[in-house]
Amino acid sequence: MSDKTPAELAEALIACPSVTPATGAVFACLEDMLAPLGFDVDRRISGGAPDGPVENLFAIRRGPEGSRHFAFAGHVDVVPPGEGWSSAPFVPERRGELLYGRGAVDMKGAIAAMVAAVRDIPREAGTISFVITGDEEGPARFGTLALMDRMRALDAIPDLCLVGEPTSVNRLGDMMKIGRRGSVNAWLEVAGVQGHVAYPHLADNPVPRLVAMLAELDAWQLDAGTDWFQPSNLEITDLDVGNPTTNLIPALAKARISIRFNNLHSGASLSARIAETAARHGGAARCVISGESFITEPGAFSAIVSDAVKAETGLEPEASTTGGTSDARFLKDFCPVIEFGLNNATMHKRDEAVVLADLDTLARIYRRVAEAGLSR
Amino acid sequence: MSDKTPAELAEALIACPSVTPATGAVFACLEDMLAPLGFDVDRRISGGAPDGPVENLFAIRRGPEGSRHFAFAGHVDVVPPGEGWSSAPFVPERRGELLYGRGAVDMKGAIAAMVAAVRDIPREAGTISFVITGDEEGPARFGTLALMDRMRALDAIPDLCLVGEPTSVNRLGDMMKIGRRGSVNAWLEVAGVQGHVAYPHLADNPVPRLVAMLAELDAWQLDAGTDWFQPSNLEITDLDVGNPTTNLIPALAKARISIRFNNLHSGASLSARIAETAARHGGAARCVISGESFITEPGAFSAIVSDAVKAETGLEPEASTTGGTSDARFLKDFCPVIEFGLNNATMHKRDEAVVLADLDTLARIYRRVAEAGLSR
Ligand SMILES: [Zn+2]
Ligand SMILES: [Zn+2]
Repeated sequence: MSDKTPAELAEALIACPSVTPATGAVFACLEDMLAPLGFDVDRRISGGAPDGPVENLFAIRRGPEGSRHFAFAGHVDVVPPGEGWSSAPFVPERRGELLYGRGAVDMKGAIAAMVAAVRDIPREAGTISFVITGDEEGPARFGTLALMDRMRALDAIPDLCLVGEPTSVNRLGDMMKIGRRGSVNAWLEVAGVQGHVAYPHLADNPVPRLVAMLAELDAWQLDAGTDWFQPSNLEITDLDVGNPTTNLIPALAKARISIRFNNLHSGASLSARIAETAARHGGAARCVISGESFITEPGAFSAIVSDAVKAETGLEPEASTTGGTSDARFLKDFCPVIEFGLNNATMHKRDEAVVLADLDTLARIYRRVAEAGLSR
Repeated sequence: MSDKTPAELAEALIACPSVTPATGAVFACLEDMLAPLGFDVDRRISGGAPDGPVENLFAIRRGPEGSRHFAFAGHVDVVPPGEGWSSAPFVPERRGELLYGRGAVDMKGAIAAMVAAVRDIPREAGTISFVITGDEEGPARFGTLALMDRMRALDAIPDLCLVGEPTSVNRLGDMMKIGRRGSVNAWLEVAGVQGHVAYPHLADNPVPRLVAMLAELDAWQLDAGTDWFQPSNLEITDLDVGNPTTNLIPALAKARISIRFNNLHSGASLSARIAETAARHGGAARCVISGESFITEPGAFSAIVSDAVKAETGLEPEASTTGGTSDARFLKDFCPVIEFGLNNATMHKRDEAVVLADLDTLARIYRRVAEAGLSR
């Protein structure tokens, strides 16, 4: 194990099919990498149907009493490969400068780099842990949240956490994520009275009220963005009446919206505002908050990541808060969290591939980040 | 035959199940009523799938050379009975003052009254015809239109036409229809580019454009009505995106509208205006004109109907243009058309029923109308 390259470690993980939710082999593979390095590996299954059960792995190698604790976080589940691959998605294959396979960049390659990074860090440097879920791409209800419960029980709250999501865009190192926007979805409904279009006075068409509600929502200017966040944004994602009959006024009209919001809002404030707007147009809203916004404001931790990236790549990573949610939205309750990882160009796509040399570079970056994080 | 009451004639017709499109037995039953009265009965099947084949009946009893021609028009098809009847829908049943059965008012009862009306009118009074389709409740593409082709071929264009649809509302005689609004339905579409709600700049959400289009259409004030017509009216009848994924911006948004319009508009003028509006919002419209508006302005014919109704019921029928379309929208190309018939309270409903006495009254009204129409 100790002489395997990051690419070889990544190949071993890719060779274990692990479409979300991941279980079994891929965790055994990771356990076999970490146990020889002195980690106590704790694999547990949490939750029940419909969003579980989910397998998770928490591994910790404790440093001297009172030392700092640096956590690597990530996931071994992958999105379904889909059709049309040039080679089998779960048979890792090197072609030219690339290593192909589902999970190569999102994010088995990054986990391989984490393993390679820590094997050269002496135990005396401090406490290091791996917070690895089998359900990040799915509902994520019994994934990182269950791991965090376990960490609390083990009195293993980290001081810093690096999530290995693929954040680089054009070249390894050009972007890190210091926060993410929050997300709220709302299901909107307006009820009316069904009737015949020839006798509209006997009916009550709910569609115009829904249209007026949506026109108002679509016109919202939630904010102009902040130093670190894009403006919050609302999208109408669905409309549904389901009336096949041309001469029928329908009894119910439905829509769905999705808001990505920065830290000028909360899920609760937006939900209240949506509900008020819906009610004013004679309708109702059911809001589901998928995550609050969070930010690790630029400071000591971002400087550590930035310095490490610059030392290995020459690039200064942009501190971004764009993109979808990740498990960083949970881990920020423990400590400062930054996400940094491989190029995301092929993530979730067919022929997902990582530049082989980037795996070595990323391992060196991760080692620098962990060592600096433990030394502060 | 000649001594059967209108109620007995109606019972014979109701006893022939004839859910649209009607064929066979119900036409044979009507033929057996008309042939003994001296009518030449012409039954034909027209059209092919999907809107055919359809059976129709044209019966004519020609008067003296040069005499006027009065046509009774109607349909023997009925809408499906549905569930929950108190008695079998195709087994006519008298209970108290009512005769129950599918088609009792819409419109086998009226056809029975027409048959009873004409048997006492001498052939010398003029030419009388029956224009009876088996497809009025369905697509109506090969129904009255096919009958009209046949009438042209037979050189049998009437001078006046009475359609026996159930136009009375509270009491037999309170309303006749002198016209109907036109109808146009439009299928609206806006295309965009699918994407992730977290990256809206990479997508192009079509829903806001559709919402803005619908808000504009819903605000249309087409007109304020005319002496004989209600204001034209637009209803949004369907919305459809069909996107189950909360974080997905959809690629296509669809809606449907339905306009009922008076004779200040034409199907073509409205279709052009809809298409222009849709295009201005980045979308497209497919318009289908179901019928143009028409009016038989109050005059000689409406006076004939009104006088006959008043003589038999004491009521002056309101000259209305409300309600859905009927085959009068086709027949108005031949001659003045007025619709008058039974109470419509139970039409298309379960336990459809006609007041037995109304059948006799309606037969007398129809006889007066035909005789007066032939004598002018
Ligand atoms: Zn990921
Ligand atoms: Zn009818």
